[in-house]
Amino acid sequence: MNLVEYKNIQSIVRPRIHRTPVLSSTFMNETYGSKLLFKCENFQQTGSFKIRGAIYATHSKLLTADSKILTGHSSGNFAQALAKAAKIYGKKAILVMPENAPASKVEAVRHYGGKIIFSGNSPADREMKMYEYLIKNPGSIFIHPSNDMDMIRGNATCAGDLLEAHPEIENIIVPVGGGGLLAGTALASHLLSPDTVIYGAEPAEADDAKRSFHTKTIVPSKNPDTIADGLRTQLGTVNFPIILNYVKDILTVTDREIIEAMKDVYRFLKIVIEPSSAVPLAVIRKYPEIFSGKINGVILSGGNIDLRTLSDIFSKR
Amino acid sequence: MNLVEYKNIQSIVRPRIHRTPVLSSTFMNETYGSKLLFKCENFQQTGSFKIRGAIYATHSKLLTADSKILTGHSSGNFAQALAKAAKIYGKKAILVMPENAPASKVEAVRHYGGKIIFSGNSPADREMKMYEYLIKNPGSIFIHPSNDMDMIRGNATCAGDLLEAHPEIENIIVPVGGGGLLAGTALASHLLSPDTVIYGAEPAEADDAKRSFHTKTIVPSKNPDTIADGLRTQLGTVNFPIILNYVKDILTVTDREIIEAMKDVYRFLKIVIEPSSAVPLAVIRKYPEIFSGKINGVILSGGNIDLRTLSDIFSKR
Repeated sequence: MNLVEYKNIQSIVRPRIHRTPVLSSTFMNETYGSKLLFKCENFQQTGSFKIRGAIYATHSKLLTADSKILTGHSSGNFAQALAKAAKIYGKKAILVMPENAPASKVEAVRHYGGKIIFSGNSPADREMKMYEYLIKNPGSIFIHPSNDMDMIRGNATCAGDLLEAHPEIENIIVPVGGGGLLAGTALASHLLSPDTVIYGAEPAEADDAKRSFHTKTIVPSKNPDTIADGLRTQLGTVNFPIILNYVKDILTVTDREIIEAMKDVYRFLKIVIEPSSAVPLAVIRKYPEIFSGKINGVILSGGNIDLRTLSDIFSKR
Repeated sequence: MNLVEYKNIQSIVRPRIHRTPVLSSTFMNETYGSKLLFKCENFQQTGSFKIRGAIYATHSKLLTADSKILTGHSSGNFAQALAKAAKIYGKKAILVMPENAPASKVEAVRHYGGKIIFSGNSPADREMKMYEYLIKNPGSIFIHPSNDMDMIRGNATCAGDLLEAHPEIENIIVPVGGGGLLAGTALASHLLSPDTVIYGAEPAEADDAKRSFHTKTIVPSKNPDTIADGLRTQLGTVNFPIILNYVKDILTVTDREIIEAMKDVYRFLKIVIEPSSAVPLAVIRKYPEIFSGKINGVILSGGNIDLRTLSDIFSKR
């Protein structure tokens, strides 16, 4: 991706989404001993950054293959994003979602006009149901939620917007699940601010990305059990080489550390985020030797959390 | 208050506080069938609008009587605001706070350099402790949290900012406890946008303002028991005439209705508010015959909520 290509991607994505704010708190910075700049994708259309990739992927794929139907599988945020992107482009979206998806996410997908096919609850169940659908409907355009170069390119606009507004940022810390946001962030930073250092932040209970990064081989996610429900997926062959090339390290934190960071976001910033979005801040808290005294950009990837789940999290000491 | 006086107040307050955003959600507006514009004072310095009044009152009182000490009583938000205002003006703040004040509020007051005198938990206990202090320290400047004309003038800048940004607003709905924000809003609207209609929003379990409004006599708050902890106080002789003159009506809602509105703010806007701030939205939900199809401005007065309290609220069905 060169600057001309990036500007083209930006010109497709930007007019179709919100310009989300970058928030900061003096009280918080004094407490942490570093400057923290939060890119608030929890306020984004559909409640997460995924709409960026979904719009660019939809745009890009429709250039070469027209279809009335866009389709994908998702446990949550990507489903809402693809439903909305399809609506913007006048297409129909078919989403494979697990039966245990929260009612609020199902409702939101339907609000954006998406049709849902329910599957079993595991990622493998979703993929199987997806393949079944695609075999019967070969004319549909399939978009993968994270392991797709167009998704990665669209996601790159998030860090791109942050770096345009704050070129002084020294580190950017990004949650890593499927790897689509981390790869996009790495590409944007490499292009727009090559001295900025990129870190992936991952739950210790779903540390497949860290293990993959250090062994230089994609290792599968083994029974991930973390509160950060958006980060249970594993890296893919498209995003992995980008991550290996342009990311400095992948750091892990426990669920308890994620909850403490999440509390700090609620207390200091007064905004609603989902647990996955708190993972980068938990990393900053845990590794002061890396982040203290620095200007750190954090991508708050989304704000789609069931209020019952929120209640359970904050009832824990 | 005329326009010249208002501009002077604004010139004192504005450079010392945050310019808080006005948020709106298309999804939410479609669900409600009206246009809702939220002035987000939960993002304000010290977490509530009270800093506006505290700064102007501090400024104004120091013009006529110098003192090293500012003092006031508060169960929460005003204590933080006065501590911060005193710090800005290089003064010391002494706050009377109840023993059961949440640890987070006590910590925040101390962070801003305020000294705390603890009292018993009732408003009467706080006032008694305050008088004891003032008798012993007659040189201190006392500022009342709501029944003070300078507090009201400073608070007026909140609705003023909202109306400057959105002159198309037809109704503004404001929580009413002590009456300082409602009176300030009414003054600002009368001056800047006289056709805008102002409503007070009050918990049914603390409906002294409604009863006072309809009987045209200040009636005391009788054992208020509501989740909206900021609204348990009663109107005062300074703000009551302003409210009687410029407010259309005071509407009440149950705690259950407040919780439902609070959930909608978290779900649609992804921001953290305290229960008191949800009361206006609960009123909008309850009275569609008044607010449906209109452009409604809502003042989200603050975001200072204990996470344990938040957890308890969202665990209720």
